[in-house]
Amino acid sequence: MPPRARRGATTTDLVLGIDIGATKVIAALVDRRGRVVVESDRRVHRNDGPAGVARAVLAGVADCRPAEHGGVLSAGVAVAAQVDTDRGVVLYAPNLRWRNVALADRLRRTLDVPVLLENDVRAATWGEWYDGAGRGCANLACLFVGTGVGGGFVVDGRLLSGAAHATGEVGHLIVETGGRRCHCPGRGCLEAYASGWAIGELAREAIRSDPDGGAELVRRAGGIGRVTATTVTSGARDGDRLARRLMDDAGEYLGAGAVSVVNAFNPARLLLGGGVVEGWPDLVRRVASAVRAGAQPPAARSVVVGRTRLGPHAPVVGVARLARARVRRAGRRRAGPR
Amino acid sequence: MPPRARRGATTTDLVLGIDIGATKVIAALVDRRGRVVVESDRRVHRNDGPAGVARAVLAGVADCRPAEHGGVLSAGVAVAAQVDTDRGVVLYAPNLRWRNVALADRLRRTLDVPVLLENDVRAATWGEWYDGAGRGCANLACLFVGTGVGGGFVVDGRLLSGAAHATGEVGHLIVETGGRRCHCPGRGCLEAYASGWAIGELAREAIRSDPDGGAELVRRAGGIGRVTATTVTSGARDGDRLARRLMDDAGEYLGAGAVSVVNAFNPARLLLGGGVVEGWPDLVRRVASAVRAGAQPPAARSVVVGRTRLGPHAPVVGVARLARARVRRAGRRRAGPR
Repeated sequence: MPPRARRGATTTDLVLGIDIGATKVIAALVDRRGRVVVESDRRVHRNDGPAGVARAVLAGVADCRPAEHGGVLSAGVAVAAQVDTDRGVVLYAPNLRWRNVALADRLRRTLDVPVLLENDVRAATWGEWYDGAGRGCANLACLFVGTGVGGGFVVDGRLLSGAAHATGEVGHLIVETGGRRCHCPGRGCLEAYASGWAIGELAREAIRSDPDGGAELVRRAGGIGRVTATTVTSGARDGDRLARRLMDDAGEYLGAGAVSVVNAFNPARLLLGGGVVEGWPDLVRRVASAVRAGAQPPAARSVVVGRTRLGPHAPVVGVARLARARVRRAGRRRAGPR
Repeated sequence: MPPRARRGATTTDLVLGIDIGATKVIAALVDRRGRVVVESDRRVHRNDGPAGVARAVLAGVADCRPAEHGGVLSAGVAVAAQVDTDRGVVLYAPNLRWRNVALADRLRRTLDVPVLLENDVRAATWGEWYDGAGRGCANLACLFVGTGVGGGFVVDGRLLSGAAHATGEVGHLIVETGGRRCHCPGRGCLEAYASGWAIGELAREAIRSDPDGGAELVRRAGGIGRVTATTVTSGARDGDRLARRLMDDAGEYLGAGAVSVVNAFNPARLLLGGGVVEGWPDLVRRVASAVRAGAQPPAARSVVVGRTRLGPHAPVVGVARLARARVRRAGRRRAGPR
C-alpha cells in the first residue's frame, strides 16, 4: 500500500519504527512525540527468509520516503522473536523459523543509521508506557491477546528483559496444572485457553460436539474448518449463544492469568490489548472484575485494569522510542563524561 | 534463649537484623560480610499487639548485647506483612492482625538508630541475592514454601517492590482456574495446593477418605487432627506411601508455579527455600525437571534451579543489608553532592 502522510513534523526528529510479523512488515516514521507520521504495510511470507524480509523492510522504508521528511536519526525494529538487543541478533523467531539472524547489522548496512532490535511485545509494552495508556505509571504490566498471548513489564521506568531476553511470556502462565496441550512444550498454559488460536480450536471442538449450537458460527465462517477466533468474537458481539459461552470461558482463564500477574508483580496498571480484546472488549471488564474479586487485596486495590491505546501501532511507536533513546545515550557518551 | 556468639567482628560494622514472625522474633547482629555474629529468639503471640512485640524486639536486641560489640550502625526489621518501606509503616500483617502500625518510628525511639522496615520474604530474597545462593545473579527469583508460599524478585541489583509494596505473592499464582479455595479471596492458588497449611489439609482429607492408607501418618502425629505438613514430609522421608503421593502432588503444583515464574520473569536463578522444601528437598529436583520440560525453551535453558542457602537467617541477613545500604546512602547525602 502507498504510504499515508499523517501530520507534519520537523525535519530532524524522526525515527524509523519497523514491526516484522509473520505475515507483514510495518514501516513507519515516528516523531519525537511518539506519533506515526507516515506508515507502510508490506506483505511477507514465513518462507521468505531473512533476505526476503530485509527486502520487504527496505521497500517499506522507501514507501515512507524518509528523505522527503529530512531523513531519520535511527531505526528500531520490533520482531515476534526472542532477540538479543545488545548484539542486534534475532535468536529465535518460531513463526519466521529464524535462528541467530544478525538482523540489526544487515539493516544498518543498507539503512545507514543505527538499528536497534527488540521483541515486538516488549516494544509494544514500552510504547504503551511511553506514549499510550501506561504513561506516567511506575509499575506497568501489559497483556496482549492476539493469535498468541504475550506481555511485558515496566518497573520504575525500565522495561524488564530477563536473563535471556525472554521476560513477559505471560501466555505461558499455567492456569490448569496438567491441562490442555499448548503449542509450547507446556500443558495448561493461559495461551491454550484464551489465545486466538485456542479460541478457534475450542470453538471447532464445541461445534463438533454440538453441531446445532454451532450452526450459526459455521454459517458465518463458511465451514467448520474456517471458524476462527474472529468468527467467535463477531458472533459474540451479535449475541450468538455458543460464541458468548466460548468468550466467557476465555475470559475466566484470562482473569486467572491476570490475577497471577497482579499477585506476582503488583502493577499500578494492567493493560489489555491485541486482536481478541479488540474483537470482544468485554474481556477487559471481565478481567477487571476477576482481579477485584480474586487478587490479594493490597494488589487488587492498587491496580487499574484498562485497555491499551496504541492498537497495532504500539510496536513501531515503542521500538522507535527505544531507538531514539539509544541514539541519545550514544550522543551523550560522545560528548564526554556527564 | 541466651544469645549465642558466633564469630568475631570489628566493633563498628554491625547492623541489627530483626525478623518478626507470628510466633517468634529473631534479633541478630550481622556483620558487613552478611554473617550473623550473635542471635536471639523470643517467643511472641499474635495477640501481643504492637507494644508487646516491640518489647520482645527490645528484649531480643538486649540479648545480643550490642554495646559489648561496639554498638550498631542501624537496624533492619523484617515483618510478615505488607509494609511501606519509605514511611516505615506496617500496612497490614494478617498473622499479627496489625493494620497501619508505625513500627519503624516506635523502634527508632528506643533503639536510637535508623530503622528500616521490609517485608520478610522480600528481605529474605535480598539476603539470598546478596549473601546467599543468589550472589552475582542479575535476575533472581526466590520461592519460599513454608506455612504459606511467598517469593521475591531481584532485577539488575534491584529488589522489586511494586505499586503497593506487594510484589512477590507467588503463592497466589493461579494454578487451577476455579480450583480449591485459598485462605485469600482467590481460588486455585498455588498456596492452596503446595503450602504447609494446604499439605496438612490435603493430608487430613486423604486420611479421612482412606483411613488405612493414612494410619501411619495418624500414628506419627498422634491423631488425625494433628497431622501437618511436617508429619507428611517426615513420613515421605521414611517412605510412607500416602506421604509420598501427597508430596508428589505438591511437587506437581509447585512445578506449575515455577514454570509460570520462569516464563513470565525469565530469571537466571530460581531458588527454593522454606520449611516444606527443607523437609522434602526432593521438591527442588521435581521443580527443576518441571521447568526443563514445561517452560519456554529460551527461559528454561537460561535458568538454574537450586536451593536457598541462608535458611531461617535469610530475613535478618537481607534486612540488615538493606538497613546498611540506607545508612550509607544517607551518609553520602550528608557528605554533599556526588
